[in-house]
Amino acid sequence: MAKKKPLILVSNDDGITSRGIRKLVELMKTLGEVIVVAPDSPQSGMGHAITIGDTLRLDTDDIFGDVKAYKCSGTPADCVKIGKHYILKDIRPDLVVSGINHGSNTSISVLYSGTMSAAIEAAMEGLPAIGFSLCDYSQEADFSHVDEFILKIAKQALEKGIPKGVALNVNIPPKRNEAIKGIKMCRQANAKWQEEFDLRHDPYGRQYFWMAGNFVNFDKGEDNDEWAIANNYISIVPCQYDLTAHHALPILNDEWDF
Amino acid sequence: MAKKKPLILVSNDDGITSRGIRKLVELMKTLGEVIVVAPDSPQSGMGHAITIGDTLRLDTDDIFGDVKAYKCSGTPADCVKIGKHYILKDIRPDLVVSGINHGSNTSISVLYSGTMSAAIEAAMEGLPAIGFSLCDYSQEADFSHVDEFILKIAKQALEKGIPKGVALNVNIPPKRNEAIKGIKMCRQANAKWQEEFDLRHDPYGRQYFWMAGNFVNFDKGEDNDEWAIANNYISIVPCQYDLTAHHALPILNDEWDF
Repeated sequence: MAKKKPLILVSNDDGITSRGIRKLVELMKTLGEVIVVAPDSPQSGMGHAITIGDTLRLDTDDIFGDVKAYKCSGTPADCVKIGKHYILKDIRPDLVVSGINHGSNTSISVLYSGTMSAAIEAAMEGLPAIGFSLCDYSQEADFSHVDEFILKIAKQALEKGIPKGVALNVNIPPKRNEAIKGIKMCRQANAKWQEEFDLRHDPYGRQYFWMAGNFVNFDKGEDNDEWAIANNYISIVPCQYDLTAHHALPILNDEWDF
Repeated sequence: MAKKKPLILVSNDDGITSRGIRKLVELMKTLGEVIVVAPDSPQSGMGHAITIGDTLRLDTDDIFGDVKAYKCSGTPADCVKIGKHYILKDIRPDLVVSGINHGSNTSISVLYSGTMSAAIEAAMEGLPAIGFSLCDYSQEADFSHVDEFILKIAKQALEKGIPKGVALNVNIPPKRNEAIKGIKMCRQANAKWQEEFDLRHDPYGRQYFWMAGNFVNFDKGEDNDEWAIANNYISIVPCQYDLTAHHALPILNDEWDF
C-alpha cells in the first residue's frame, strides 16, 4: 500500500505573488500535497504581529494552478492561524514551511521577521516548521542554487522530525561564484542593527523619516549563523518561543529585594 | 552635590492617549526626568513589527504638560529606535519602560505584545528595560493598586540594574477584593491561544472573519507567570532576544544527515 503523501502548508511574508513563495511551492510539490495560505500583500518586518481588533479577509487564488491557495489580508502569523484553525480544521499538516524570503533573516533579524513568525506560530501549534530565507534582498534574486538544499532540509524534517516547540530558521547564502559548502546547525549570532533616521520634507513642508540601518556583528564565534553565511554555508538555527532568560532568574532572585 | 536625576524613556503600544501610559508617566516623574516616545495610534498585537519600506512621522505633543513627549506613526519597536537613535542621539537613558498595557502579556502573549517589543528593543540596545501590563483589557481598567509595585520595580532596576540583554516582562493582577500578595520572579508559562474564526458577511455580501481565541494553559508548575497572576502575585519574567533553542542543537546535529 502506498504511503499517504505528506500535507505541507506553505506561507511567507513577501506576499502570495512573490517569486520566493512560487519557488517554495514548486519544491514542496515534489514532496507532498501542498496548500498555500499567504498574505495578499507584502508583510516584511511584521515580526510576530497578529490582527487584533480588526477583521480579516480570506479568498482563494488560482495563482499556483492545481495547488489550492488562499490569500489573506492579515500578517504571516494570522495566515498560519487561519490555515490551521479554519481552512484545515482537524487535519494536521505534516510540515509548515515559510518563505523563501527575499533577504536575510540571520541573527537578530529573526525577531523582526514575518517569515519566521509564520514558522514559530506553527511550532506553537506543535507542528514541524521551517522558515527559509535567501540572503539577497533583490526582487530579481537568483534562486537557482537553492533547490537541493531546501529539498534535503524539508525531507529530513518530514522523515526525522524537528524537536517539539522548535522552528528552524534556515538562511541560504546569495548565489556566488563558489558553490555552497554545506549546511551548519548554528546559534543566533550576537549582532544588531544600528539605525539611522533620514529626515526629509514632503511636498507640503512636513517632515518625515526613512529608517535605515547598518548591521553590526559583535560575534567572534564560528558556530553562529552570520559566520556560516559569510563562509558560504547554509545556516540552520533552531528557534524557540520561550523567551525566559533562565540564566537571569537566580541573579534577580538574589540581588533584588521584593 | 546632588546626584543627577535618571533619564527615563517611556513608550507603549496602546498609543500616546491611553490611560496606561498616562499613569506610567506620572509614576516615572517621581523617579527622574521623563521623555515619552509613543505610537500616535493603538498598536496592540504588533509583536516586534518595524516599519520597513515606508516612512515614519514624528511630532511633539504637549499631552503630558511639562514632560517632553513625541508621537510617532510607527510601531512600539520603531518608537524606541527613533527615541534612542534620533531624539536622544548620544544620551543614553538610564531606564526604558513600556506600558502600562491594558491587558495581560503573560505566557505566550509576550510574542504578540507591542508593549514587550518596545522593552526588548531597548534591551537589544543594552538598556535596562521593563514592560508593564495590567491583566485587565478594559479601557476603564482600575489602575489604583499598581503604584507602589511599579515604583518598587523601577527603583530596583535603576539601583541594582537588570542583567544585560534582558528585558523584564511585568504583569500585574487586575484589581481584586484581596490585596496583591507580592512579586514573584517567574518563567514564561507553557500556554497558548486556541483560535476560532468567526465568519460573517459584510453589507455587500463578501465574507470576513473575526479572530477570537481561548487561552489554554498546559502548565502545571507554580514558578510561572500564569500561576502568579492567578494567585494574585505580580509576575516578573526576564526575557531575552536570543531565540536559539540550544537544547535542540545536539539533537539535530546527532539525528539529521547533512
